[in-house]
Amino acid sequence: MTRLAIIGAGLMGEDHASIVARDLPGASLQVVCDMDLARAKAVASTYGAADVSDSPESVIARADVDAVIVASPDFTHAPLSKACIAAGKPVLCEKPLSQSSEDCLGVLKAEQAAGRQFVMLGFMRRYDQAYIEMRAALANGTLGRALMMHNFHRNVETPAADFTGAMAITNSAPHEFDIVRHVLGSEFTSVTAMQPRRSDDRVAPVVMVLETRDGQLVTIEVNNNAAYGYDVRAELVGEAGSVAMNQVAYTRTDRKLASSTRYDADWRGRYHEAYVRQNRDFLRFVETGTFPAIASSSWDGYAAAVVAEAGAHALATGQRQTISMMERPAFYAGVKGEAA
Amino acid sequence: MTRLAIIGAGLMGEDHASIVARDLPGASLQVVCDMDLARAKAVASTYGAADVSDSPESVIARADVDAVIVASPDFTHAPLSKACIAAGKPVLCEKPLSQSSEDCLGVLKAEQAAGRQFVMLGFMRRYDQAYIEMRAALANGTLGRALMMHNFHRNVETPAADFTGAMAITNSAPHEFDIVRHVLGSEFTSVTAMQPRRSDDRVAPVVMVLETRDGQLVTIEVNNNAAYGYDVRAELVGEAGSVAMNQVAYTRTDRKLASSTRYDADWRGRYHEAYVRQNRDFLRFVETGTFPAIASSSWDGYAAAVVAEAGAHALATGQRQTISMMERPAFYAGVKGEAA
Amino acid sequence: MTRLAIIGAGLMGEDHASIVARDLPGASLQVVCDMDLARAKAVASTYGAADVSDSPESVIARADVDAVIVASPDFTHAPLSKACIAAGKPVLCEKPLSQSSEDCLGVLKAEQAAGRQFVMLGFMRRYDQAYIEMRAALANGTLGRALMMHNFHRNVETPAADFTGAMAITNSAPHEFDIVRHVLGSEFTSVTAMQPRRSDDRVAPVVMVLETRDGQLVTIEVNNNAAYGYDVRAELVGEAGSVAMNQVAYTRTDRKLASSTRYDADWRGRYHEAYVRQNRDFLRFVETGTFPAIASSSWDGYAAAVVAEAGAHALATGQRQTISMMERPAFYAGVKGEAA
Amino acid sequence: MTRLAIIGAGLMGEDHASIVARDLPGASLQVVCDMDLARAKAVASTYGAADVSDSPESVIARADVDAVIVASPDFTHAPLSKACIAAGKPVLCEKPLSQSSEDCLGVLKAEQAAGRQFVMLGFMRRYDQAYIEMRAALANGTLGRALMMHNFHRNVETPAADFTGAMAITNSAPHEFDIVRHVLGSEFTSVTAMQPRRSDDRVAPVVMVLETRDGQLVTIEVNNNAAYGYDVRAELVGEAGSVAMNQVAYTRTDRKLASSTRYDADWRGRYHEAYVRQNRDFLRFVETGTFPAIASSSWDGYAAAVVAEAGAHALATGQRQTISMMERPAFYAGVKGEAA
Repeated sequence: MTRLAIIGAGLMGEDHASIVARDLPGASLQVVCDMDLARAKAVASTYGAADVSDSPESVIARADVDAVIVASPDFTHAPLSKACIAAGKPVLCEKPLSQSSEDCLGVLKAEQAAGRQFVMLGFMRRYDQAYIEMRAALANGTLGRALMMHNFHRNVETPAADFTGAMAITNSAPHEFDIVRHVLGSEFTSVTAMQPRRSDDRVAPVVMVLETRDGQLVTIEVNNNAAYGYDVRAELVGEAGSVAMNQVAYTRTDRKLASSTRYDADWRGRYHEAYVRQNRDFLRFVETGTFPAIASSSWDGYAAAVVAEAGAHALATGQRQTISMMERPAFYAGVKGEAA
Repeated sequence: MTRLAIIGAGLMGEDHASIVARDLPGASLQVVCDMDLARAKAVASTYGAADVSDSPESVIARADVDAVIVASPDFTHAPLSKACIAAGKPVLCEKPLSQSSEDCLGVLKAEQAAGRQFVMLGFMRRYDQAYIEMRAALANGTLGRALMMHNFHRNVETPAADFTGAMAITNSAPHEFDIVRHVLGSEFTSVTAMQPRRSDDRVAPVVMVLETRDGQLVTIEVNNNAAYGYDVRAELVGEAGSVAMNQVAYTRTDRKLASSTRYDADWRGRYHEAYVRQNRDFLRFVETGTFPAIASSSWDGYAAAVVAEAGAHALATGQRQTISMMERPAFYAGVKGEAA
Repeated sequence: MTRLAIIGAGLMGEDHASIVARDLPGASLQVVCDMDLARAKAVASTYGAADVSDSPESVIARADVDAVIVASPDFTHAPLSKACIAAGKPVLCEKPLSQSSEDCLGVLKAEQAAGRQFVMLGFMRRYDQAYIEMRAALANGTLGRALMMHNFHRNVETPAADFTGAMAITNSAPHEFDIVRHVLGSEFTSVTAMQPRRSDDRVAPVVMVLETRDGQLVTIEVNNNAAYGYDVRAELVGEAGSVAMNQVAYTRTDRKLASSTRYDADWRGRYHEAYVRQNRDFLRFVETGTFPAIASSSWDGYAAAVVAEAGAHALATGQRQTISMMERPAFYAGVKGEAA
Repeated sequence: MTRLAIIGAGLMGEDHASIVARDLPGASLQVVCDMDLARAKAVASTYGAADVSDSPESVIARADVDAVIVASPDFTHAPLSKACIAAGKPVLCEKPLSQSSEDCLGVLKAEQAAGRQFVMLGFMRRYDQAYIEMRAALANGTLGRALMMHNFHRNVETPAADFTGAMAITNSAPHEFDIVRHVLGSEFTSVTAMQPRRSDDRVAPVVMVLETRDGQLVTIEVNNNAAYGYDVRAELVGEAGSVAMNQVAYTRTDRKLASSTRYDADWRGRYHEAYVRQNRDFLRFVETGTFPAIASSSWDGYAAAVVAEAGAHALATGQRQTISMMERPAFYAGVKGEAA
C-alpha cells in the first residue's frame, strides 16, 4: 500500500483526496496538510486520512509518507517540489510548477542533481480521451502532417474581479500550452497576444497565435468571462483532415421550441476521468520509479512557464515575442518522446 | 407561360400562390378561387393573380386556365380532382385525395376512363432532401436490404380541441404512410395502433406498427400535442446500416449553461424547399404530359386512404388489422416504380 | 476491507475483477472461481486475487468471503443467489436472475424467509448517466407527465448463429424492460412483438410495443445484427417535452468528404462507468446492509422475467399478451420507490 | 419583365443563368455574353436566353437589357461596373470589385458622379441563413456586445498549383472580410497574417487576426487545401454567449462502426439559397431603384480590397499592418447601417 500525503486541502486538494479514496486501490491517504488545520481535518475525515498537519515540510519528511500530492497555492509549488526531491519522494505537483521560469530551472537543477525524476506535473489533459484520440489520429496517419491547432478555453467568470489578461496567460493558458506541445510534439518559437475590449471592467478574452519549431500555427483563445459555461474546445488540423473535440453530453432535452444540451459551470465534471487516469499513472510511477510515458515533467513545467512569460510580454508590448528556451537536458524526455 | 388556378386561399393555398409567384418562372397565377371572395382577392393581390372567383367548377372550366392547384377543404379534393379530369386539366391536389378509399376509387376510375393521368397528389415529402438521401442509400446498396423504418411526426399542438386519435391517423399519418411506401417501395399489409393516456383531454399520441409485403416493419408515432416544437424524424434501418434524418438548424446558441438549436412552430420552414421542388415537377408535368417519376398519384392517394382506414379501425378495436388494397391497375406505376 | 468472491471468470467476470481491483478501494478480491481452473487462475493473477476455486458452493461458504459477484452462465444465477442467501451473504448477480419467472419466485421466497435482502441484480443501466438524467427530468417536472419511451438496442452481430427472436427477448431485452420500469416507475401490463424478415438466416430485429399500468406506451427494438455498431438509444417523451440519449463521442474526424464519430463494437466502453458506479453501490450495500435506492432487486429480476416470458409468447403467437405479475410483496420496494 | 444580361458564362455565370431561369419570375435572360461564343451559346440554350454575344460593352449598351450580372474574370469587374454606371444600368458584380483598392475608388467616383448607386456586389453570404441568425442574435441582445468572431474557410484543394498565400488573402478571404464587417457592423483597423509550413508545395493555410474600430478581435483561417471537404465555419462570441454555424446535413449514416455526415466538394450546395436570395434582392433593386438594406455596395468592395491589400502586406512582411481606409462618403451606407 502506497502512503500518500496531500498538501493543500482546498478545492483541488479535496478532489485529489477523493480520487485517492475512491479510485486508487493500492494507495492510502496518510496525511492531509493545510495551513488551516480545521480544513485539513474536515477533508481528512471525509476521505479517511490517517493524520493531519499544517507543516508541509515535516509532512514531506515523514517516514510514513511514500509520495506527495501538492495542491497548495501556486507560489509554494516549486519549493515544495524541491523539498520532495530532497526527501527522495515522488511528487504530483499541481500546475504551474512556477510562474517564474527561473524558479522552474531551480527545480530542474535539483532534480538532475538527485539523479532521477521525482516531479510529475498536474497537466491532466494529457489523460483526457479527446486529446488522446487527437494524438492517435496523428500517430496512425489519419490526418497527415499536423498544420494547425485551434484551442478555446472558456470559463463562466473569473474568480476574482482583479483578474488580468496577463493572468489569463500565466494561470489559464498553461493548460493549453502544455497540451499543444504534447499533441503536436513540437516546441513553441513565437507568440503574439491580443485582446478585444469589453464594455465592463472584467478581463477580456486573450487571443494568442503561436508558432512551433516544426512550422505549425496554433491559436489559443482564453475567455475567462465567457458567461455561458465551462467550455474547452480544440481542433487539430492536418494536411489530410481534422479531428475536433465534441461537447460531451449524455442527453439532450427538447422543450419550448429548442433542443439543448447542458454545459457545466466548472471544469470538474469534464476532466474528472482525466484526473483519475493521471493519478493512477502517478501511483504506478511511485510504485515502479519509471516516469510515465505521457505525463508532464518538470521540464514541461519549465516550458509552459517560458511560453507564458513570453505571452504576457507579447500582450504587454503588442509585439510578437520570440520564445527562447534553454536546450533540453538529455535527462528529460522531449515532446516528441525522445528518450530522457 | 402556363396559366395556373389555385382553388382554396387558406394557409396552404397562399403558400402555393407564393411559390407560383416566386419560384415558378414559366407559370402565371391566373385565378385565385375561394368561397370567401375577400380572402381570394387578398391573396390574388399579394401574389399578382390576374383574376379571382368563388366558383371552383367554373374556374376549372375556364379556357385561360391550363392547370389547377387544389388547396380547399379535404372533402372537396376528390370531386374537384374529378372535375379537373373531366376538363382534361392536370391538377396538383393537396393530400388527402379523400379520407374515404371508396371516393378515391371514383377518382381512379374517372382518370383511367380519361386515358391518362391528370392527378398529382401533394405528398411533398417525396421531394424532401432527407428522404431523397434515404432512397439513394437503399438504391446504391449502402444499407443493404431495408428492414425497418421508424417515423415520428410531432406538432406543437392540435389546431382544434376536439381532434381525436382517429383524426391523427386519417389527417396527419397519411404523410408518413405515403413516404414510407415511397422509400421502402413496398405496400402495407397490416397495422396495429395504440395510444398512451394523457393527463388532460387533448389527443394523446398514436403509435402504429405496420408490416409490408416485403416483410419490413414500420413504426409511426403521431404526436399532435408534442408541445416542444414541430419535429419530424425518420430512420431507415437496413441489414448493413442505417440512415437517419438530422434536425436541420443553421446555427446553435450557447447561453446560460446550455447549447441549443431552435425548432420551428410549424411545418412550413422545414418543408418549404420540398414544396417548391414538388410544384416545379408539377409544372413540368403540365408542360410535358409526362407524370413525374417520384410524384404521388391518385393511386398513392387511394393507398394512403386504405391504410388510414385500417389504422383507424385498428385503433378503435385494439386489434391488428389486415390491409386489403385492390390490385394495382397497370395504368398506375407501383411503389417499386413498375411502369404505369 | 470487504472480501469479495467472483464466480465465473468469463468476459463479464473478468470485467468485474478489473473493477474490484481498480475502482473499489475498500474491497479485495479474495477468490476467483470458474469451472475452468486455468481461466480462474489467469484472472486471479492479473487482478491480484488471493485464491482460486472451481467450486461455487464452497466459495460461497468460505469464512473469508464477505460477499459474492455472480457472473457465471445464466442457468446458475438463481441457484447461486439462493446459496448466497442461505449463507447470509450479499450477492451482485449478473442479469437475468433467471429466464424462468418460476425460478425467480424461488429466490424471492428464500430471500423473504431470510428476513432481509441479499440479492442485487446487475441491471447496471440504472447507474448510467443518460438514464439518470431522464429520471431527473421527470422528477423535476421538466417533461411533464411521461407518455412514451422509445428504446433501441443494437449489437454488431449475434454471438451464435442459432440465436433466435425469442432469445433477443429473453437475453437482450431484459436490460430494456428493467430500465424502462425504473425510468417510468410503472409496471408493464401488455406486450406485442413482431419481426421483419431478413434476407439471410441471422436473427431479425424484434420490435415490441408495451403498455404500462399508468397508461404509457413503450417501444423497444432489439436488433442483434445491426452490423454498424453497438448502439443503445432511448427517448423519454413527456407531455411538455422530451429527453433523448446522445451518442457519446469525445471527438469527430473530418476526412474524405465526411465528418464522422466512432461506434464501439461492444457495450463495454459505453457502460464501463455504469458498472463501476453499480459495483460501488454494491460495496456500500455489503458494508451497510442497506439496499441501494436505485439498484435492481430480486423482485426486479422476477419482473423482467415475467415480461420476457410474455414477450416471447407474444412473438410466437403474433398476439398481444397480457402481462400478469404476482402482487409485489411489501418486502420489496416498487418501481415508484414505495418503501420495501 | 426585367431583361437581364449575364457577362461571363463560366461556372459562376452559368449558376447565375440557372437562378434567373429557375428562381426569378419577373426576370428574363436577354443575353449571355462570353469571349468564348460557343460557351455563351451552350449556356443560352440550356437556360433559354434570347441572344448571345462576345462583346461585353455592346451588351451593356443594348436597349433591350435593363440590368447586368457580371461573372467574368476578376480584372474585368471594375471596368464593366463602370460601363454599367455609364449606361445607367444596375449591375450585380461578382466579388471582388477589384483586387486594387485604387481601382475600386474609380468605381466609387463614377457612381457618385452618376448621382445614385448602380453596383451591388456579389458577397452572397449576407443572405445566408446562418449569418442572418448571427446578426439577429446581436440585434436582439441575446449575445450582449460582440467581442470576437472566429472564421474558417476551407476548400478541398486549390484550383491552380501556383496559388499563393497572398492569393488566399486577396481571392478567398474577401468573403470573410465582408461578412465580418457586416455581422459586427465595424471596420477593420489592423491585420496580422501568418502561415504554417506544409510538407509539399501546395499553398499552406493563412491565419489572420484582425482588430476593429469597436475593439473586437477577429480570427480568419483560409485553408485552400483542407483536403477533407468544403467547409465554412463561423462563431460570433459576445459578452453573454455565442452563436456558431452548424454543419448543415439532412441525414447521417451509420455504417462500419461510424456515424457520418457528408461534406460537399465545393461551395455551390452550401450557398445556393444565399445566391437565390441575393439575386432576388438584386431584381427588386432593378425594379425599384432602392439599394437593398443588406446588400454589398461598391463601398463594401473597396473596403474588402483595402483589407486584402493590408493582409497581403502583413503576410509578406510578417508585421501587423494598420488598415487605412478613406473616409466613407455619405453617399454610401456604412456597416452599421448609417443612412447613405
